[in-house]
Amino acid sequence: MLILGIDPGTRIIGYGIVETHPKTKVITYGVIKTQDALPKKSQPKNPYATSEATTLATRLLRIYQQILKIIKEYQPDQMAIETVFFSMDAQATIKIGEARGVALLAAATTSTPVYEYSPAEVKKSVTGNGRADKIQVAEMVKNILSLDEIPKPYDASDALAIAICHTHRLL
Amino acid sequence: MLILGIDPGTRIIGYGIVETHPKTKVITYGVIKTQDALPKKSQPKNPYATSEATTLATRLLRIYQQILKIIKEYQPDQMAIETVFFSMDAQATIKIGEARGVALLAAATTSTPVYEYSPAEVKKSVTGNGRADKIQVAEMVKNILSLDEIPKPYDASDALAIAICHTHRLL
Repeated sequence: MLILGIDPGTRIIGYGIVETHPKTKVITYGVIKTQDALPKKSQPKNPYATSEATTLATRLLRIYQQILKIIKEYQPDQMAIETVFFSMDAQATIKIGEARGVALLAAATTSTPVYEYSPAEVKKSVTGNGRADKIQVAEMVKNILSLDEIPKPYDASDALAIAICHTHRLL
Repeated sequence: MLILGIDPGTRIIGYGIVETHPKTKVITYGVIKTQDALPKKSQPKNPYATSEATTLATRLLRIYQQILKIIKEYQPDQMAIETVFFSMDAQATIKIGEARGVALLAAATTSTPVYEYSPAEVKKSVTGNGRADKIQVAEMVKNILSLDEIPKPYDASDALAIAICHTHRLL
């Protein structure tokens, strides 16, 4: 079974696919950078030429299309996505909500079942410690998947950790 | 020019379309209820039969499809959407973020330019008071659009208020 893990962030969406049988192994991983389409600081004089919200919408379309592309290419059986860490500020929470919205939509569009895990659940599942830091999580991801190096950036290793967390629930 | 206003909520998405010329008038309004697809309290024994996240994803797909349908039917020139009221709790903020994500995606998919306004900007623009309540906003919407009754539910009158707020910026 192939599991797609998604780590929705404010600027970078991590993704990672693992195969569960016969041994948990990595298929692919990477990041979608949402920053590329952000408005430049020097706005055109007419604020309606391209509004910030239009740029944001274009950015979300890009995330959606990239996740769809990954799903269509690898055809994961299930998706696992992280919930929001609630101590974040409201601006970050809303941005992650928007990214989560289009990631979940990509799952629904392709009829891919989705499962959610909190950051603490993912950390605990992968390292045994719900308060592990990103480096500890990445090290365990490397060990579990028998990789030579830790998968980088951390957004990608986090996405692999989310996928691994879900495979643990499937056992 | 036709303006589509979107009021993204946690359970109900309000929408309303107004025409700007020669006089601001209503074209249509209504709500998309997101609750319909929510999981029932009695979950099946196997938590993986239909996960809550899959239900959430299906719900977001429904919102997306309904907004797309409205855009394709009425072909608004621009969309106006409300930003989040930041005193909300994190759970509500994330839900509104998810709804905003798919609404913005519907705009990007159809190349509809989008503009954002805060709740206070909308209230101030429509009633002159940034702290007006929903009833005062609905009353002003009724007056501005020369309606016999206030548009209900308030999610729909709020969406019309967002569209009207944007028409004021276009003048």
